[in-house]
Amino acid sequence: MTRDGTLGVAVIGTGRMGSDHVRRIDEVISGARVAAVVDIDGERAGAVAASVPGCAAYTDPAAAMADDAVDAVLVASPGPAHEAALLEAFARDLPVLCEKPLTPDAASALRVMEAEVRLGHRRAQVGFMRRYDAEFQQLKALLDSGAFGRTLMLHCTHRNAATPPGFTGPMTINDSVVHEIDVARWLLGQEITHVTVLRPASSSAAPGGLSDPQLVLFETAEGAVVDVEVFLNCGFGYQVRCEAVGEHGTARAGDAHGLYVNTAGRWGGEIAPDYVVRFRAAYDREVQAWVDATRRGETTGPGVWDGYAAAAVCEAGVRAQATGERTPVTLVPRPALYGG
Amino acid sequence: MTRDGTLGVAVIGTGRMGSDHVRRIDEVISGARVAAVVDIDGERAGAVAASVPGCAAYTDPAAAMADDAVDAVLVASPGPAHEAALLEAFARDLPVLCEKPLTPDAASALRVMEAEVRLGHRRAQVGFMRRYDAEFQQLKALLDSGAFGRTLMLHCTHRNAATPPGFTGPMTINDSVVHEIDVARWLLGQEITHVTVLRPASSSAAPGGLSDPQLVLFETAEGAVVDVEVFLNCGFGYQVRCEAVGEHGTARAGDAHGLYVNTAGRWGGEIAPDYVVRFRAAYDREVQAWVDATRRGETTGPGVWDGYAAAAVCEAGVRAQATGERTPVTLVPRPALYGG
Amino acid sequence: MTRDGTLGVAVIGTGRMGSDHVRRIDEVISGARVAAVVDIDGERAGAVAASVPGCAAYTDPAAAMADDAVDAVLVASPGPAHEAALLEAFARDLPVLCEKPLTPDAASALRVMEAEVRLGHRRAQVGFMRRYDAEFQQLKALLDSGAFGRTLMLHCTHRNAATPPGFTGPMTINDSVVHEIDVARWLLGQEITHVTVLRPASSSAAPGGLSDPQLVLFETAEGAVVDVEVFLNCGFGYQVRCEAVGEHGTARAGDAHGLYVNTAGRWGGEIAPDYVVRFRAAYDREVQAWVDATRRGETTGPGVWDGYAAAAVCEAGVRAQATGERTPVTLVPRPALYGG
Amino acid sequence: MTRDGTLGVAVIGTGRMGSDHVRRIDEVISGARVAAVVDIDGERAGAVAASVPGCAAYTDPAAAMADDAVDAVLVASPGPAHEAALLEAFARDLPVLCEKPLTPDAASALRVMEAEVRLGHRRAQVGFMRRYDAEFQQLKALLDSGAFGRTLMLHCTHRNAATPPGFTGPMTINDSVVHEIDVARWLLGQEITHVTVLRPASSSAAPGGLSDPQLVLFETAEGAVVDVEVFLNCGFGYQVRCEAVGEHGTARAGDAHGLYVNTAGRWGGEIAPDYVVRFRAAYDREVQAWVDATRRGETTGPGVWDGYAAAAVCEAGVRAQATGERTPVTLVPRPALYGG
Repeated sequence: MTRDGTLGVAVIGTGRMGSDHVRRIDEVISGARVAAVVDIDGERAGAVAASVPGCAAYTDPAAAMADDAVDAVLVASPGPAHEAALLEAFARDLPVLCEKPLTPDAASALRVMEAEVRLGHRRAQVGFMRRYDAEFQQLKALLDSGAFGRTLMLHCTHRNAATPPGFTGPMTINDSVVHEIDVARWLLGQEITHVTVLRPASSSAAPGGLSDPQLVLFETAEGAVVDVEVFLNCGFGYQVRCEAVGEHGTARAGDAHGLYVNTAGRWGGEIAPDYVVRFRAAYDREVQAWVDATRRGETTGPGVWDGYAAAAVCEAGVRAQATGERTPVTLVPRPALYGG
Repeated sequence: MTRDGTLGVAVIGTGRMGSDHVRRIDEVISGARVAAVVDIDGERAGAVAASVPGCAAYTDPAAAMADDAVDAVLVASPGPAHEAALLEAFARDLPVLCEKPLTPDAASALRVMEAEVRLGHRRAQVGFMRRYDAEFQQLKALLDSGAFGRTLMLHCTHRNAATPPGFTGPMTINDSVVHEIDVARWLLGQEITHVTVLRPASSSAAPGGLSDPQLVLFETAEGAVVDVEVFLNCGFGYQVRCEAVGEHGTARAGDAHGLYVNTAGRWGGEIAPDYVVRFRAAYDREVQAWVDATRRGETTGPGVWDGYAAAAVCEAGVRAQATGERTPVTLVPRPALYGG
Repeated sequence: MTRDGTLGVAVIGTGRMGSDHVRRIDEVISGARVAAVVDIDGERAGAVAASVPGCAAYTDPAAAMADDAVDAVLVASPGPAHEAALLEAFARDLPVLCEKPLTPDAASALRVMEAEVRLGHRRAQVGFMRRYDAEFQQLKALLDSGAFGRTLMLHCTHRNAATPPGFTGPMTINDSVVHEIDVARWLLGQEITHVTVLRPASSSAAPGGLSDPQLVLFETAEGAVVDVEVFLNCGFGYQVRCEAVGEHGTARAGDAHGLYVNTAGRWGGEIAPDYVVRFRAAYDREVQAWVDATRRGETTGPGVWDGYAAAAVCEAGVRAQATGERTPVTLVPRPALYGG
Repeated sequence: MTRDGTLGVAVIGTGRMGSDHVRRIDEVISGARVAAVVDIDGERAGAVAASVPGCAAYTDPAAAMADDAVDAVLVASPGPAHEAALLEAFARDLPVLCEKPLTPDAASALRVMEAEVRLGHRRAQVGFMRRYDAEFQQLKALLDSGAFGRTLMLHCTHRNAATPPGFTGPMTINDSVVHEIDVARWLLGQEITHVTVLRPASSSAAPGGLSDPQLVLFETAEGAVVDVEVFLNCGFGYQVRCEAVGEHGTARAGDAHGLYVNTAGRWGGEIAPDYVVRFRAAYDREVQAWVDATRRGETTGPGVWDGYAAAAVCEAGVRAQATGERTPVTLVPRPALYGG
């Protein structure tokens, strides 16, 4: 599938995330090269392509996928454009790494899933990159080892220095908590069945009308309980933690680390300013894992079912946020392709 | 009120807690002596009294309070005996330090409160000793300083190695979470208005029938949200933490500390085995503060209103635990004596 | 020896340390009262005495010790006055708690030791209060347990925000490092045989002429090595740590702890500003232990031999500081009274 | 210099380190491929080459360097073979990444340096990979920022679970402490002028005859002092830390991190078992940095002067270890090529 052993990747979307993936594949990742970039803004696509030797520029994803040099697709366009790109990639049987969300809602995610089921084999990995963070991987390994017995609860924290302009209440769930939805499903190996959202009095730092922080509660199929503090205007930095409570012990990922400093009357250290700094290594590992699996002819990592399930929990979460009620999650039966 | 400047204390109840207070007053506390001990089991009272020079033994609290050498009363008898002892102390206008709970239910706590209101001045301090832990005091001072703005959430953890035989579901609220109820009310300076309890699948280490762990949620009058993990058979030790989330920062009390050790492939240290070790200094500070205030003719610290409010929240909590519903807390108006 | 079971203490010296001990005995310590205070400045002595009920004021230590109300002596006068006070106390067979240093040099310490040996029993405890810090006690217990095998090295840190005016090079050893000398001898249970001092380029924050920081090295009779960073104008606070390296593990006392805070882009917490804050509980525990032992008719804790040995190591340290040479420590044989 | 934009690397030596670099270049590093492997054991070289597409096997380094597919050389053979390989690479003007030590002694390092000076431009990077560890890089950046003023002291710890068979006293300096020699020179930007070694009583876990642990002291040209605990049979894992003491603050790299776990009565986490786990990311970053610089036609990172200076300090260190004396370090003047 690859030319001279190197995977030719078409990167669709050249915004912040897409450009960063172009840089990553060009400079960091082993075994892949950027064969094409796609942006609805042709000038922008051309400028990015010009910075990478042998990279073509397109404005149409389908045309890029038809390029002989393209062996695989990385979708980093806005969420509403994902469905079409995924269906086109499936039509050409091209491997895809699709940034989260898979699609903006459960219905479209279901259509994507049906298309992949028709294809008969997995072709898409979804960009839930927490699964590639070293500490989260250690946590997963510890829980799976059985050393702590069953996992009974997760306490999650998701803090961000400040929201960008235009950030809305539903985006709290769809753009931020969606990571904890995936982490909870992945760490616990269970589906989420109910969502409840508590909204404390808002911080004065929250933009007008935005409830911030919030406490989001998940209940799972086998009775685990997950609480998530999501606080997107906390002011002091980006902080993502998860403490798992097992029958015989607890373990926490994501404590601040790095240099330990004494100065000016205080001990401690710096908090990462944003996810780019905090999860840089996880993004690198994610894309490398995708390239490696793809070169072996496999599709691994979080898949379309995970993207669909996350979308369904988000929908319930947004309703729970609006109503204050404990809200059930509705899922179709899991297809056999995804281990159902 | 005192003989030769030293406060003569009658300790009522000589069980684990009462005996420990006898030792504390005898050996640790400055400005007080154990003038009398009371136990329904006269032999036991006599044995304890014999170990302290100049200490009398009684089986009747009222008789002990009538002893000329008694200037103040420390109530450490079982909860159902507290109301009578408090009313007797109020009748004699004797200062009281009453172990938690003030009384076993809100109705009896209300009767005690009405008696103190009739007395016209505060005479009772309730034994919520977390308020005397050095880190919790630092946390309170930080929040009160306003440096972090309003406090929006508290994340609490209350873990215990194992429950004693006969421990029941309601005791989870009444004996354990009651501490977090007081801590939340104290740190936030607000009453709790609603309680919700989520019960994850139980640990296999929990005795048959006991839901353990549980996640208890409080909402307060000004919209703060508090979550409490209470896990009483966690197996690994006693661990009490509280993270306050303010508008401009977060602060956590209760992280394990002490020696930092590297050995056998691990870094870290020991977790306190129980509350006696974890909160020894807090108990010392609590009783010393009571003795000092009493010698100055004052009553400070958590009072009867706090005991009553905690009892009312506990009642709502036990209902919430049974029904799974978000349950309102009912309080009488706060009397002027308690700043109402 | 005591009146109504309470130990009557004469506090000699009412400077910063003496006044703090008066407050401590009056307000914190159980089983003792301040019977007399002594200061060469009679007005000052009178003012302090007036604040404590039943306390007499003296300008002459011997007169205070002759007071019938005095059962024991706490020496907190300047170092050069210690020898006379100790000899007077021994003459009256009064128990003494003597602030460090025992005396300003080894020769005078030796005279004090000879006097106590003639007395035939221990009467003096020296104020090396690190032995009463909770973490140092845990460290000692861990090392003594044998769990980590023999102790091979100690890494010590002794940092202070700033030196007071008039602080000299020898005071670095005599006033600051003397604590590490005692800690090393106590933790290791061995005498120090050699001292070496390295003097890095000084911090620009060090007053003119003062070498600061310094690295002080001790070698002990059984071959342990101790390094001490002493940095008395570090600017950021007071920090005392000790890491013991055993054959099977290492353990560190004195890491900053207390509240863990996230704010303004940083995680961490406050460093204690000075020894009064850092070691408050250790001072309380030290004086309480002395009162308790004295009431039992015993003398425990660091004794005159420890004070003498520390003085001898200090003398070698001051020489080592001046010469840059590895300098041997000279000690007389240990008298039988001190386990020799 | 490269074929289709990818750097063809000859890896010389296929022992533990060489094989790991082959895997790294093949699977992890972007922009490079393993063009050839060399081992004196031809069968071994052939087996390794067979696992990498398009990789040739050689037994002679010079023959490999003559291969058209080879653009650069990674030397991972035993130390005594380094000089010949480096001189051959210089003769062909090939970029080299040479595992530490540059050569086994200062005299041979000097010959290599003279050859590179004759070449007229830098071609060799030495494998001091601590400079590529994320925390050490943060520490370097902090010190260089000037925020903490001049750096006055470094406290280093270098612990290893156990030494391999045949490990000797000089290897303590040459194989282990050599890393701290480079770290100290790099962080301080100063040459080391004197070395002293203290040898405490050995751990019973140390193989017969080996002094372990040791305390190694460096003094630098501008008066900084560095202490290094090197403890190679500490039993509990691999631990490398460095605390820098500046005029206005201190900072420490290398505290254990990763998951924070509560279980079995203890809080804490795992210590890395060895340098492969601890510094995996640093090795990746080091080789990637070399590949990136080489593709740009540059040579960056620690160079031949650093390798030579480390060898000279090691020679002084081994003498200091044997004699117990403070031992001066002798260096030739720094050639202009290295900023002299």
